[in-house]
Amino acid sequence: MPAHAADRLIAAIEAKGAPVCVGIDPVVEKLPRAILELSDVQLLEHFPLCQELSEDSQREMRDRTRIHLYVWQLLQALLAHVPCIKFQSACFESLGSAGVDELIEGIHMTKRWGGQVVLDAKRGDIGISAEHYATAAFGGVHKPQAWGVSDWITINSYLGRDGIEPFLRPGHGAFALVRTSNPGGDAIQGAILKTGQTVAEHVASIIAEIGEDHLGSRGFSSLGAVVGATKREDAKQLRNIMPHQMFLVPGYGAQGGGIDDVLPCFHSDGGGAIVTASRSVIYAFDKDDPNWAESVGEAAAKFADEVGRAAGMR
Amino acid sequence: MPAHAADRLIAAIEAKGAPVCVGIDPVVEKLPRAILELSDVQLLEHFPLCQELSEDSQREMRDRTRIHLYVWQLLQALLAHVPCIKFQSACFESLGSAGVDELIEGIHMTKRWGGQVVLDAKRGDIGISAEHYATAAFGGVHKPQAWGVSDWITINSYLGRDGIEPFLRPGHGAFALVRTSNPGGDAIQGAILKTGQTVAEHVASIIAEIGEDHLGSRGFSSLGAVVGATKREDAKQLRNIMPHQMFLVPGYGAQGGGIDDVLPCFHSDGGGAIVTASRSVIYAFDKDDPNWAESVGEAAAKFADEVGRAAGMR
Repeated sequence: MPAHAADRLIAAIEAKGAPVCVGIDPVVEKLPRAILELSDVQLLEHFPLCQELSEDSQREMRDRTRIHLYVWQLLQALLAHVPCIKFQSACFESLGSAGVDELIEGIHMTKRWGGQVVLDAKRGDIGISAEHYATAAFGGVHKPQAWGVSDWITINSYLGRDGIEPFLRPGHGAFALVRTSNPGGDAIQGAILKTGQTVAEHVASIIAEIGEDHLGSRGFSSLGAVVGATKREDAKQLRNIMPHQMFLVPGYGAQGGGIDDVLPCFHSDGGGAIVTASRSVIYAFDKDDPNWAESVGEAAAKFADEVGRAAGMR
Repeated sequence: MPAHAADRLIAAIEAKGAPVCVGIDPVVEKLPRAILELSDVQLLEHFPLCQELSEDSQREMRDRTRIHLYVWQLLQALLAHVPCIKFQSACFESLGSAGVDELIEGIHMTKRWGGQVVLDAKRGDIGISAEHYATAAFGGVHKPQAWGVSDWITINSYLGRDGIEPFLRPGHGAFALVRTSNPGGDAIQGAILKTGQTVAEHVASIIAEIGEDHLGSRGFSSLGAVVGATKREDAKQLRNIMPHQMFLVPGYGAQGGGIDDVLPCFHSDGGGAIVTASRSVIYAFDKDDPNWAESVGEAAAKFADEVGRAAGMR
């Protein structure tokens, strides 16, 4: 695999003919009944020491095992069709350190099975703190696998250049938030500057400038941008300002964005963007269906096909 | 203790006569020699199962124990003088899930010994993800102690209202980034809008408006603001825009801010702000001194006295 993060992501997208990413945001209550109703014995047999733990800790271990089984089966269903998996850090962190262990395990599984990984953590800090977040995501000399060695991380750009550069480590990449898909983003990101640019366009020009020093052989930077699929008009303008950024495009599916909304994020040759869907794929099953993972695989195949065709890759 | 997060923080500040917070950003290499040179036997005796672990995992457990001993002694030295401790999440996350366990343990110790806790995680997301970050920081029905039940969390405001409100849970609070102390922050936060306001001032007016619905009995909101101590002129203006926000003021000490720089963050009666210092206090020792914690205690007392006097509380 190529050493530059953008080259590697593009190669993975081309191999699957699908510029898509599926987001894994596990929530215990939403899991298939086949997993929710496993007995305590089945859930705890992997953790023999658990019988000595408090009731709270046992509940935590049961939830951890449920998430583990769900992610394991999800990945098998997804990686046949999609080149890239986005892990929503929050949904693992809410289970405490056991959740972080499952996040790490999920990232390892994805890498082992040939997928590219985006750690969706939206971190943003400066100096030593930013370095430590980068080490958590990408590994370091002392901690080769702190949070599992992701290919990419999502970051928040509000702190500016010194909040961004620490994440641009060789072999890894960062998608910086530029224009988000939520309604509340407009009030700040859509505000108009004296120059006539929106705040998002101004942030985009800073990202483009910083990213220029980190180009791969395919012409794209290891500093990418998050541009929501619900902001069609903005996307065209942002595409012009950031020609060398890969766009990570959330908001497809459950958040209301459709194929026409994501197309302006691509270059005319179908490159430069990767569309992400989460709930519309990972919960695409009847809760009572014991073969729920098949439905997830079908939803992933359909999603990959829709976007792959629209981008002219199929 | 009062139930409202701002009331509780103000009561703790008044009890100590010091509107200050010390940040704990542990980095293994910087620890006192007394901790760095503990033997493997001394470091691993708390973890008898470790002898069966891989060399990598053993190194992780040794670092974890070092951080544990350091934080434990720090807290004893600090909490005699300061009302509030800020934990830098990144420095724990870089140690993987074992680091998260130590972060949780540090938060528990602080609460047990009567301190207020700010989880400096600078999280920022929307919807279910924001809810899960809030549950990680503050606990939830299923996970009462995921990351240890902090009083406050720091958050990033770039996503707007729906990235902020999920963190305003009863009994807890959030400090939203408005104006950061780093040089790179100027390019975005200092950009001028068509209205004549800077982006930071515009963000401040949004924070003030959202915070209005969350006031405590002392007139301050559980939505506070991070305003760097290196931005003196900006601070005056931001103080006017956000009269009901507690300001968390980083940048004092190691980052170059002095007492004159932080004063504009306070109201004229000395209320409304809490100044934070990290490296200038927690590393205020000679690395070879076996009684290093005494020097940390002295630095904390001096810091509390300087700011306490300047705010008219002593």
